[in-house]
Amino acid sequence: MKTAVRPQITLVGAGPGDPELISLKGVKALAQAKVVLYDALVHPDILKYASAKALKIYVGKRAGQHKFPQEQINQMLVEYAFEYGEVVRLKGGDPFIFGRGHEELTYAKSFDLPVQIIPGISSIQLSALQATPLTCRGINESFWVVTGTTRAGQVSKDMQLAAQSSATVVVLMGVRKLPNIVSIYQKLGKGAMPIMMIQNGSRAEEKVVIGRIDGIEELVKEKRIKPPAIMVIGEVVSLHPDFVYEQALLQVESAIPSAAE
Amino acid sequence: MKTAVRPQITLVGAGPGDPELISLKGVKALAQAKVVLYDALVHPDILKYASAKALKIYVGKRAGQHKFPQEQINQMLVEYAFEYGEVVRLKGGDPFIFGRGHEELTYAKSFDLPVQIIPGISSIQLSALQATPLTCRGINESFWVVTGTTRAGQVSKDMQLAAQSSATVVVLMGVRKLPNIVSIYQKLGKGAMPIMMIQNGSRAEEKVVIGRIDGIEELVKEKRIKPPAIMVIGEVVSLHPDFVYEQALLQVESAIPSAAE
Repeated sequence: MKTAVRPQITLVGAGPGDPELISLKGVKALAQAKVVLYDALVHPDILKYASAKALKIYVGKRAGQHKFPQEQINQMLVEYAFEYGEVVRLKGGDPFIFGRGHEELTYAKSFDLPVQIIPGISSIQLSALQATPLTCRGINESFWVVTGTTRAGQVSKDMQLAAQSSATVVVLMGVRKLPNIVSIYQKLGKGAMPIMMIQNGSRAEEKVVIGRIDGIEELVKEKRIKPPAIMVIGEVVSLHPDFVYEQALLQVESAIPSAAE
Repeated sequence: MKTAVRPQITLVGAGPGDPELISLKGVKALAQAKVVLYDALVHPDILKYASAKALKIYVGKRAGQHKFPQEQINQMLVEYAFEYGEVVRLKGGDPFIFGRGHEELTYAKSFDLPVQIIPGISSIQLSALQATPLTCRGINESFWVVTGTTRAGQVSKDMQLAAQSSATVVVLMGVRKLPNIVSIYQKLGKGAMPIMMIQNGSRAEEKVVIGRIDGIEELVKEKRIKPPAIMVIGEVVSLHPDFVYEQALLQVESAIPSAAE
């Protein structure tokens, strides 16, 4: 006779790449899971935290084809929970930062299923691994996170305003829209603005390019930066040890506060 | 005879509160540490991941007095590394999101010390634990993280522009500046904007208030919300299950996408 199944869905952020950047709580949820639904950005080693007996189902892009539609993932989550009990939905980064975790939560809640949320370190935090803070006293006081690809497949209209602000701008899912982003900055006379792009951040195969808006497209081509990658745009990027001061346009050095403040 | 000491500094994000929201990598660094310098926002249980023999030094606010100056913390980091070897600097949230991690890194690097960076789940991610995404398709496409208290003790001037944008605005260190923030929104005619405040997020003693700009000060007083707490301001807050639609001013419901898109 089968034991009564207690359905439970846990949305877990796998972190930005390095399998050790998942939280302890995420590891514990994986160890309990009967089923794990994971996507393309999850490092394969993270699946080792789940039981060998757990069903592990890939719901990212199918070879050469479209992604699983979100609707289908939602249904799988619910069906597996009723069938097997503990289901972990494992997503790269943080499920609630452009991760559609809220859509999965809402769907599961419509079946009165208990849902636990375990955040993950987001890819926006990869900047730190490049020794580059998103804000720095004396340089700026905020950062603005924008999607490079909206539902309509466009750069968010917020990009226009963000580029005019003094906030550091972090763009997710923007690699294919780089020409548009470059053009926004250039039209504002901000072609000298420092920019960093990070592909596969925190993984062994990490690639980083650092430059200015003017010239970043050539660098990206040369270094073959491919999606997914994050962009960090702002004067804080000049704090990166590899940033080259070939032009004294921004004079950010004088703005760096002393450690003694 | 003493073994040769190999100085190493690791800046570790402890996460937003819950001791299990630290990363696996952070736990491993703590287990190796000879010295741990920790601050006020770190949950005491996290110190248990360090060896019983490790020196654990509190560098947060001294009872009723000023904080340790940053300069003194920098010096301690370096001196302990030379004296004992592995030093972990353990900070609440993420050391590079308004965490002054970059100042510590720069100081340690000036002594040619090796520095490893281990990000943490930031307090900006606490919104997810309230089932509230920072962005939602059909509502908005970006979020903007602003400090409520700049070096000069003021609300960041970016707050003015942020309040005009369609970005969700996340304010850190802003509780004492709530009247100023409320006034910025009210002057823009945005008194009906939803706002959520979270104190001690992800901990047992968590407190949350959800309302609108108009009336939030009374709620904060009533529920005795104290710093540190984060603020999330934007139409996405209306997605919170406890948000009350007492006024149909914002009509966000019609903007919520179906799960089937």
